[in-house]
Amino acid sequence: VSALVAALRAIVGAEHAQPPARRYLTDATQAEGRVGSAEAVVLPADAAEVAAVVGWCYANDVAITPRGGGSGFSGGAVPDGGIALLLERLTRVRSFDPLLWRIEVEAGLPTASLHRLARENGLHFPPDPGAAEQSQIGGNIATNAGGPHAFKYGVTGHWVTGLEAVLAPGEIFRVGGPVRKDVAGYDLRGLLVGSEGTLGIVTAAWLRLVPRPEAAFPLVAFYPDTQAGCDAIETVLGSGVQAAAIEYLDARALAIAGRAYPGGIPAGARFMLLAEVDGERREAERARAALDEALHEGALAVAEADPDRVWRWRDGVSIAVTAHRGGKISDDIAVPLDRLAEAIEGVAAIGARHGVEAASWGHAGDGNIHASFLCDPAGDEAGRARAAAAELFPLAVELGGTISAEHGIGTAKRPHLALQYPEATLRLMRAVKAVFDPKGLLNPGKKV
Amino acid sequence: VSALVAALRAIVGAEHAQPPARRYLTDATQAEGRVGSAEAVVLPADAAEVAAVVGWCYANDVAITPRGGGSGFSGGAVPDGGIALLLERLTRVRSFDPLLWRIEVEAGLPTASLHRLARENGLHFPPDPGAAEQSQIGGNIATNAGGPHAFKYGVTGHWVTGLEAVLAPGEIFRVGGPVRKDVAGYDLRGLLVGSEGTLGIVTAAWLRLVPRPEAAFPLVAFYPDTQAGCDAIETVLGSGVQAAAIEYLDARALAIAGRAYPGGIPAGARFMLLAEVDGERREAERARAALDEALHEGALAVAEADPDRVWRWRDGVSIAVTAHRGGKISDDIAVPLDRLAEAIEGVAAIGARHGVEAASWGHAGDGNIHASFLCDPAGDEAGRARAAAAELFPLAVELGGTISAEHGIGTAKRPHLALQYPEATLRLMRAVKAVFDPKGLLNPGKKV
Repeated sequence: VSALVAALRAIVGAEHAQPPARRYLTDATQAEGRVGSAEAVVLPADAAEVAAVVGWCYANDVAITPRGGGSGFSGGAVPDGGIALLLERLTRVRSFDPLLWRIEVEAGLPTASLHRLARENGLHFPPDPGAAEQSQIGGNIATNAGGPHAFKYGVTGHWVTGLEAVLAPGEIFRVGGPVRKDVAGYDLRGLLVGSEGTLGIVTAAWLRLVPRPEAAFPLVAFYPDTQAGCDAIETVLGSGVQAAAIEYLDARALAIAGRAYPGGIPAGARFMLLAEVDGERREAERARAALDEALHEGALAVAEADPDRVWRWRDGVSIAVTAHRGGKISDDIAVPLDRLAEAIEGVAAIGARHGVEAASWGHAGDGNIHASFLCDPAGDEAGRARAAAAELFPLAVELGGTISAEHGIGTAKRPHLALQYPEATLRLMRAVKAVFDPKGLLNPGKKV
Repeated sequence: VSALVAALRAIVGAEHAQPPARRYLTDATQAEGRVGSAEAVVLPADAAEVAAVVGWCYANDVAITPRGGGSGFSGGAVPDGGIALLLERLTRVRSFDPLLWRIEVEAGLPTASLHRLARENGLHFPPDPGAAEQSQIGGNIATNAGGPHAFKYGVTGHWVTGLEAVLAPGEIFRVGGPVRKDVAGYDLRGLLVGSEGTLGIVTAAWLRLVPRPEAAFPLVAFYPDTQAGCDAIETVLGSGVQAAAIEYLDARALAIAGRAYPGGIPAGARFMLLAEVDGERREAERARAALDEALHEGALAVAEADPDRVWRWRDGVSIAVTAHRGGKISDDIAVPLDRLAEAIEGVAAIGARHGVEAASWGHAGDGNIHASFLCDPAGDEAGRARAAAAELFPLAVELGGTISAEHGIGTAKRPHLALQYPEATLRLMRAVKAVFDPKGLLNPGKKV
């Protein structure tokens, strides 16, 4: 083995520092050809070992790419040399006080395990990004992951009251804890959240929980076109109903994924909303009635849906669209809600201009669009799909939005950051990076 | 006039740059003898004038203390030389889309005006720090202000989706906007929130709103001692009721302010809870029943309260306690909820050791204690009260809490930050400060 692997084995044990298996060199952008390289994959047992590994790498100028479940869409966990540092052995629940609505967990705990643990105790950890079985809470924090229910409940960072992270040159850092409010000093907790491992490596977190909603009622509604559907969203907001989630599928996504939809789709439907209300049962029932009325405005049909079945179907939309032509180039943008219809139609127009099928869906209430350009990965159209996807970012910025709502910047979007921010802002961000990582060894090439 | 005043008058007009009136040299810590000094008070008309003023000061090495309503409790808006920069002319509502639950306002808009505007349109801006008529939204953002309803709704920063701020050396900076989710680059929005004007001067903000809860029902409950009251809080949480606010008064605060309480207080009451549920009317009624049952555990009495009267009384607790001996030295700490009883009893014990009356109250659900040591400001006991207050910070840290939950650090708590953070963390914070303010002219001597 190399000197590097030998040195890391001295820290984590022989079986936990290995030449890299290919599965650790990719993430969900693999289909787009993103495969990284690393000299070693290292799996520390705990925060102290993470600190020792970072310490060794920092002293020896070795780049470190921290990695959670590898379900990211921006290449954030794809190494480019150096080591891939996996958090997957840090899965302890350090403390759990159900009656105080709080939990302290290590970074490698799968998100779905956290959800289950909360649920079994009558509680709820609301952030619900996709790939919950694969993704880890540390990765959710590092990307400030969202999901459908962020509309009501906010993104992951809103639920983090304390962090433990390993910072350069190999120190365990703690900020916050079970305390729910804290303005002592600058908000370094908030700065680390969403920093994609470029400022430090999250090893554990204190999280807030809330009582589990007793009931959740999803409704689906179908519209003849995008504008009618987007008008209905504004009607829902204007009605004063606080929906927990408001999702949409555009015409193409509906045409493809709708074939597997567990219910009827009316003829002429070219836009779908999936909106949910939750809470105490009778309260949620009343909210459902109000939501139902609001969704009817301009609708072809509105129907109740079985929660488990409709959300399982919703989780599968991305896979169904991928399967349609064997591949897709996707990206995640957000715009102000009043520009949502323009953005959705803009995605379709970009696809038409480039001669590729375009489909979009996403978290409509947050103006968050997951846009896909479908392609046979081996065919000519893959290049056209890539060219089309690159036009999403100017579209988002032109409409007053962001080039990344919840998938992060990683390597995939870094070249596009300058569309959204002037050079002075990028300089500030790079200066913040230099404060935390003067040698530039923490997830280099990512984020800024 | 001085050369400085003349130069600033050239930017903002003669009547808007003046030798300082005393009211601009103090904040709510005035009673503790904090009075600052400044060469001039400057009142720019808009963000462009703020940028020009900062530009001139930065070029001429003049310190800038930004100032909102001056209702702070930590000296954060008290100048120490240089200029006091007032935001009070920046009161425009730049845009308001009630149907989209969002508003863009300038920093000088009084918090109460924002509340009214939202209310008149069926909406709600939940953060409710004290002194809403005096404080300004920019100051709320700069301190990440909390308040009673932060328990359910989170603190000010949670509601800020975009910021405009003037950064050194005099540039208008914008991040975020009406878009509700954004992970492009580091969270500089979050970093500026709560930075107390030491990184930049907030000039405007995009805020999220929610539908106004149809009803709010406060209940009051009285207990024979602190432990019984704190046990009841845990019973409330364990019952699964999501209270909007859970406030407490300790024995001494209750004895003093209770004389003005608009209702009956049972004999032997030495601890009071004021808890509120809100939401759609029937939902809130059911939650009230569940809250009522949970509060009864160990209680001497539980009663409904009139919302307007009980909250007006709650707002006056601080004034009543101040009036009791003519002055008080107060501070704001927070601890994990399971340490709340220890913290409250610790405050009383500190008072006893120093021979001063101690009273505490605050946002119990968030473990947030406002502790006061009562004194005749002219008497010997003021010194004892000050010595007692200084012991609050080690107490908070020992219990796993924070030396400031919502009042900020300002000058008052800066010497105590080292209790909470190791030197390495303080070094990081100072380095972040240096990135934004290399000359150290933005609110010098505050925060870090």
